[in-house]
Amino acid sequence: MPETLADIGEFALIQRITAQVVTGPQVVLGPGDDAGVLNVDGLVVVSTDVMNEQVHFRRDWSSANNIGHRCVAGGLADIEAMGAVPTGVLLGLSAPGSTEVSWFDDFTAGVLEEIDHAHVSLMGGDLSQADSISIAVTALGETRGQPILTRRGAKVGDIVAYRGRLGYAAAGLAVLSRGFRSPRELVNAYRQPQVPYGAGGEAVRYGAHALMDISDGLVADLTHIAWGSQVVVGLDSSTIDLPEPLKAVAHATGRDPLDFVMAGGEDHALVGCFPPDSLPQSWKAIGEIEDPQDRDPGVVVDGEPWLGETGWSHF
Amino acid sequence: MPETLADIGEFALIQRITAQVVTGPQVVLGPGDDAGVLNVDGLVVVSTDVMNEQVHFRRDWSSANNIGHRCVAGGLADIEAMGAVPTGVLLGLSAPGSTEVSWFDDFTAGVLEEIDHAHVSLMGGDLSQADSISIAVTALGETRGQPILTRRGAKVGDIVAYRGRLGYAAAGLAVLSRGFRSPRELVNAYRQPQVPYGAGGEAVRYGAHALMDISDGLVADLTHIAWGSQVVVGLDSSTIDLPEPLKAVAHATGRDPLDFVMAGGEDHALVGCFPPDSLPQSWKAIGEIEDPQDRDPGVVVDGEPWLGETGWSHF
Repeated sequence: MPETLADIGEFALIQRITAQVVTGPQVVLGPGDDAGVLNVDGLVVVSTDVMNEQVHFRRDWSSANNIGHRCVAGGLADIEAMGAVPTGVLLGLSAPGSTEVSWFDDFTAGVLEEIDHAHVSLMGGDLSQADSISIAVTALGETRGQPILTRRGAKVGDIVAYRGRLGYAAAGLAVLSRGFRSPRELVNAYRQPQVPYGAGGEAVRYGAHALMDISDGLVADLTHIAWGSQVVVGLDSSTIDLPEPLKAVAHATGRDPLDFVMAGGEDHALVGCFPPDSLPQSWKAIGEIEDPQDRDPGVVVDGEPWLGETGWSHF
Repeated sequence: MPETLADIGEFALIQRITAQVVTGPQVVLGPGDDAGVLNVDGLVVVSTDVMNEQVHFRRDWSSANNIGHRCVAGGLADIEAMGAVPTGVLLGLSAPGSTEVSWFDDFTAGVLEEIDHAHVSLMGGDLSQADSISIAVTALGETRGQPILTRRGAKVGDIVAYRGRLGYAAAGLAVLSRGFRSPRELVNAYRQPQVPYGAGGEAVRYGAHALMDISDGLVADLTHIAWGSQVVVGLDSSTIDLPEPLKAVAHATGRDPLDFVMAGGEDHALVGCFPPDSLPQSWKAIGEIEDPQDRDPGVVVDGEPWLGETGWSHF
């Protein structure tokens, strides 16, 4: 019989994690006490995300290591999305007592690998029994004296541009949903998103007016910038890359490849609104901020309201 | 048919909360963007706790309002337990789509009441679908230039003292487990713990050497101070108050009333180790820090290892 969480117990499991934790110089106190303590240079930026089994992930579609990477990446993307520098992560893990310790160890390894990759520190967490696996990630960051970038600052004439990937995770999920495992590039993109770490700070340096990460879907998320800034976000579909594997999956599943880009979240690309003369080279322009005039704030694609899929909403 | 979360949808539910949020002067950006932003005076202190249905609470034993109060109180107690000043809360709520909106509204009211009572701000959160209710609370605080109090600083000769309540929540839970609803005082203590807000700062001002909150059980939790500080925590049972309702419940359930105090958590009393000449009046001495000599670090009661119940451990 493989060893389970119930065989080992809460405190020994926590020690299995804390024994591996290496914290950065900003960390005054890491995991193991009532709370973690962090030195902050400027303002503290903080966000909480929840990921639930069967809703956000399936254990037959993603390895424990994938899930560990993905939950940390998703949390840190929210910090990047404010133009801030990620510094720390806290993790609340709920799982059945029957969960195998090998799953837990692989998950922990994924968490710590992503934390290491992003140059942040594990600051604390909680471990609890539950009927299914649920992961709460809190991400922390700091502004280092730089301005924060919200969804409210977009200005008419700004270039809308992104850094990262669009539609890959959604296409990967479509592949897995149909019982396939390839194209690998897309499946891997779903399993383990590649957050463009550093892109938030880059957007600040280039004077971006608004910034966010794409977690629910490009159109759904840009709608928040549209309403927050009281503008129309005009996307130009001719500027949008539709890489070959995306087209192949769309063809095989009878969908429009543009749907993956417009409605796909979870790649955690950053999308920002830049002054027209100040777009960083590594960002790709896909549209422009328009004066709403007599229109409601919202997203238009090629001048028309988007009638395709828009993205994910719970319940 | 009562309205459910599935009827309303994620974004409308989030707006139901954010519309009620009043943030303090330290909050640069509250809920509604990718992350919240907070001004920090000194170091940032941060902790995450998870509360799951059937494990930490039952909806037939606690109202939604109780659960809202309790999850915030438990989170903020961890900040007090560092001797820090609580400033903010983030909330990750997972719930089935069939959950009634009235439950959600009552829960939210409890969360916001406790946040108001503790003079902190709701900084953000996440809302997700799940098979059962799960709540992740992240609490933030600051040190305002004062030292932090860990579990590692206890010194031989220190007085061990607590502020708050001990055993009430455990006795209340014992009552509910047997299908009773009184004594009300104990049931209410379980349903809605009274965190001694401000006690953490008081412990710092009186020069405490170590501090923590009692969430798993007095003996279990003090064992962390014992190991962290490499000392023996000697408790004197004759100093421990056993109020009448505690004795009545112990009698009715065939248990030793001292078990409720020694093994009971979730009242979130603070327990600290103070220099002998510096105990605040509102704290109650229950023991002393002893030199381990040839003993392992640990907790002894009246000079003997404690053989009764010790507290809660997951899995």
